[in-house]
Amino acid sequence: MNAPLPNEVLPAYERRAAPRAMLEALRERFGDRCSTAAALCEQHGRDESPYPVTPPEVVVFCDSTDEVAFVVAQASAHGVPVIPFGVGSSLEGQLLAVQGGVSVDLSRMTRVVHVNAEDLTVTVEAGVTREQLNREIRDTGLFFPIDPGANATIGGMAATRASGTNAVRYGTMRENVLALTVVTAAGEVIRSGSRAKKSSAGYDLTRLFVGSEGTLGVMTEITLKLYPLPEAVSAAICHFPGVDAAVRATIQVIQMGVPIARCELLDTNAVRAVNAQSRLGLRESPMLLMEFHGSPASVQEQAETVQAIAAEFGGEGFEWASTPEERTRLWTARHKAYFAGMQMNPGCRSVTTDTCVPISRLAEIIEASVADADASGLPYYIVGHVGDGNFHLAYLVKEGDAGQRATAERLSMQMVQRAIALEGTCTGEHGIGLHKMGFLEGETGAGAIAAMRAIKRALDPGNIMNPGKIFAL
Amino acid sequence: MNAPLPNEVLPAYERRAAPRAMLEALRERFGDRCSTAAALCEQHGRDESPYPVTPPEVVVFCDSTDEVAFVVAQASAHGVPVIPFGVGSSLEGQLLAVQGGVSVDLSRMTRVVHVNAEDLTVTVEAGVTREQLNREIRDTGLFFPIDPGANATIGGMAATRASGTNAVRYGTMRENVLALTVVTAAGEVIRSGSRAKKSSAGYDLTRLFVGSEGTLGVMTEITLKLYPLPEAVSAAICHFPGVDAAVRATIQVIQMGVPIARCELLDTNAVRAVNAQSRLGLRESPMLLMEFHGSPASVQEQAETVQAIAAEFGGEGFEWASTPEERTRLWTARHKAYFAGMQMNPGCRSVTTDTCVPISRLAEIIEASVADADASGLPYYIVGHVGDGNFHLAYLVKEGDAGQRATAERLSMQMVQRAIALEGTCTGEHGIGLHKMGFLEGETGAGAIAAMRAIKRALDPGNIMNPGKIFAL
Repeated sequence: MNAPLPNEVLPAYERRAAPRAMLEALRERFGDRCSTAAALCEQHGRDESPYPVTPPEVVVFCDSTDEVAFVVAQASAHGVPVIPFGVGSSLEGQLLAVQGGVSVDLSRMTRVVHVNAEDLTVTVEAGVTREQLNREIRDTGLFFPIDPGANATIGGMAATRASGTNAVRYGTMRENVLALTVVTAAGEVIRSGSRAKKSSAGYDLTRLFVGSEGTLGVMTEITLKLYPLPEAVSAAICHFPGVDAAVRATIQVIQMGVPIARCELLDTNAVRAVNAQSRLGLRESPMLLMEFHGSPASVQEQAETVQAIAAEFGGEGFEWASTPEERTRLWTARHKAYFAGMQMNPGCRSVTTDTCVPISRLAEIIEASVADADASGLPYYIVGHVGDGNFHLAYLVKEGDAGQRATAERLSMQMVQRAIALEGTCTGEHGIGLHKMGFLEGETGAGAIAAMRAIKRALDPGNIMNPGKIFAL
Repeated sequence: MNAPLPNEVLPAYERRAAPRAMLEALRERFGDRCSTAAALCEQHGRDESPYPVTPPEVVVFCDSTDEVAFVVAQASAHGVPVIPFGVGSSLEGQLLAVQGGVSVDLSRMTRVVHVNAEDLTVTVEAGVTREQLNREIRDTGLFFPIDPGANATIGGMAATRASGTNAVRYGTMRENVLALTVVTAAGEVIRSGSRAKKSSAGYDLTRLFVGSEGTLGVMTEITLKLYPLPEAVSAAICHFPGVDAAVRATIQVIQMGVPIARCELLDTNAVRAVNAQSRLGLRESPMLLMEFHGSPASVQEQAETVQAIAAEFGGEGFEWASTPEERTRLWTARHKAYFAGMQMNPGCRSVTTDTCVPISRLAEIIEASVADADASGLPYYIVGHVGDGNFHLAYLVKEGDAGQRATAERLSMQMVQRAIALEGTCTGEHGIGLHKMGFLEGETGAGAIAAMRAIKRALDPGNIMNPGKIFAL
């Protein structure tokens, strides 16, 4: 396996400039919605990763699939890179314009095109955020459960195959995208999938585009599954004597087939951080934050089962959050753990891991990673979607401290090697982007990468769609 | 949309003969397991579709992934077609050797490679059948729910993206395959996916191979999700005044979010046929056959909810099958509906449809299709995975009666056009094969087919993997 791409330097790609004819064509069609202003380009040349800002040459704000097709057709004709942009919440450098080009900003495409409440489906434009979606469908009695924390766009979530806290019950974007409208690298508009719940009609293009991080085309409309709002929801926290005990209790819950809706681990450091930020007054020990969905009777039954399992592993202080306000407070704290962790350590940036392993190996990889982190002396915290075998260990390194950064990257690489040896993956939900390109080959082997490259070349022969990401060509 | 491929004639592909050197190399390595015997080749040149037998030139029985890789490498070197073969239960002509070539018989690859009960995963060789799998894992307390009726191989089920009666709760092969070992068209062995429950690591090759009907490579090992055997299982039947009422009750059940495990429709004709074959003494009216999985309390609650909904739609005669024997008897009858329907009409063959629509449109398409079928005077019956919006209407046509056959194909095409207009698909679970190639383009449009063709050419430049299926190149 190759080392991860260092965070300070970017690969030395050549930038591909847009010719004047193309810029003029874009200006003519888009007017003020086409800009080469430095501040705007810089804002579109970064995401939540620690890489240096790498701006595109031009930003175009599109209002429709046809407009996206126009931009991509121009880019295709001139061999200029295209990078789809939503709200910029990706974590692995997916949005950096390492070869220059056009940032296609989809954040104005915020139409909820059609809610089919009877079929539990909705079609949205790619720029709709998950919070907007859930606001707009609230009165249908349905909701879209995928929740990666950030208020990402549905397009961005589909592009990185995102998941988050509800995935243990509702699946990830892989399971919840039914159909797509995609602008291909040639600037043509195609449709994949349908609103039917299942299909055996040809190659599964939908799932090929989901998770392709903008490298195969621009998703402009997305049809999603929705779910009935559960009749009853109940959240609980439970404290454990150690991370290990919390993880082992989780394993048991999953193996018993309890349909738990959320099952999140916070280690002592993470609890301390959210306490400091949100004044929650939580006991500072490893903790599971859980949620149960169903009928009142089913929620009751699930909770009793889980409480009994937790007790077996030394879990105590089982506390219920029964009002929506209390639940919101707890989940908001969980979602803010990332920022809370950094605020505890001013002047630090975080190097965050995203390994995911078969759940029986979860305790093993967390224990080993904690031992390594403790030995390194770096501050860190752990949050995890442990019901899925996925966790994030964030190393907090002093901004500009190359030694600490190198230590964190070394530990991160060790953890990925461990995850792969345990039949897991280097990324459960953040994607490859720039940062994990070195890991991908170690994980899938040269043969699978060769197949991915062949597909990329077939669907994007000019290598204009978000070039330089996932793998080198 | 083009007409479906007529059942009596096959497209006039050129057969690509295996050169003597290749046949000798295969004989040398496989001995008795390589055969050109006419009877064996004929047995490998058909499936459950009504096409004329179209034998391969040679059949090779492989025992391992390496052996498959050897055969494919030979075929690749000589430009000879390769058709993976399991038990021959596909329905749309997927297995016919329309261009000759090698049938790679995987039915000896029946090893359950590894059961990971703690992770709810299992890895099997492609020739393991679903019944064998469930027998072998019985003492783990887990099961594999996907049940297409036929005792198909897991490889065949993955290749057609199969589903069946349990899909409404457990999903299809799309949702339940975690990882694959695949022999590529170049004869190389690659791995896709991992045992981790979720991943964002690069293109989703696993789901690209699932449903590709042998046209992109040979799947030799498959890692599947397993589920805890439900603590309680209960089956029920309920009679309705009409198909329409049964369908509307189903829609309501799904929209309420009841986690029903199976929800099957049989129309009066299907009930009559299974009665005649299995002496079930069922009342001969449209019927739902349902199953509930969960804790005893949850099963009770689901059943009460469904019973109340059924009553609203005129459902009556709600009967429980509480013993495993009774349940088996009912489900066996359901699975035999296909043969029972044909036995009711001696000398007939069936032309079976497989449309799947958003559930809100299900009543509409079934009503229209029933009206058309009644007007045509052809005998027919309907069975359906109505919880998924998927149903099969089988027209029974006299063997050799070209007029009846043409009527059935015309009605089938009308139904597909209707399904597509209702945002559905021409095939919920049987695949495209030869028979539905004309439908696929109408469904997905030229752009999506062009993308599929580009992927096919990229991964199989010599067009040796099950050529002539899904789409023409």
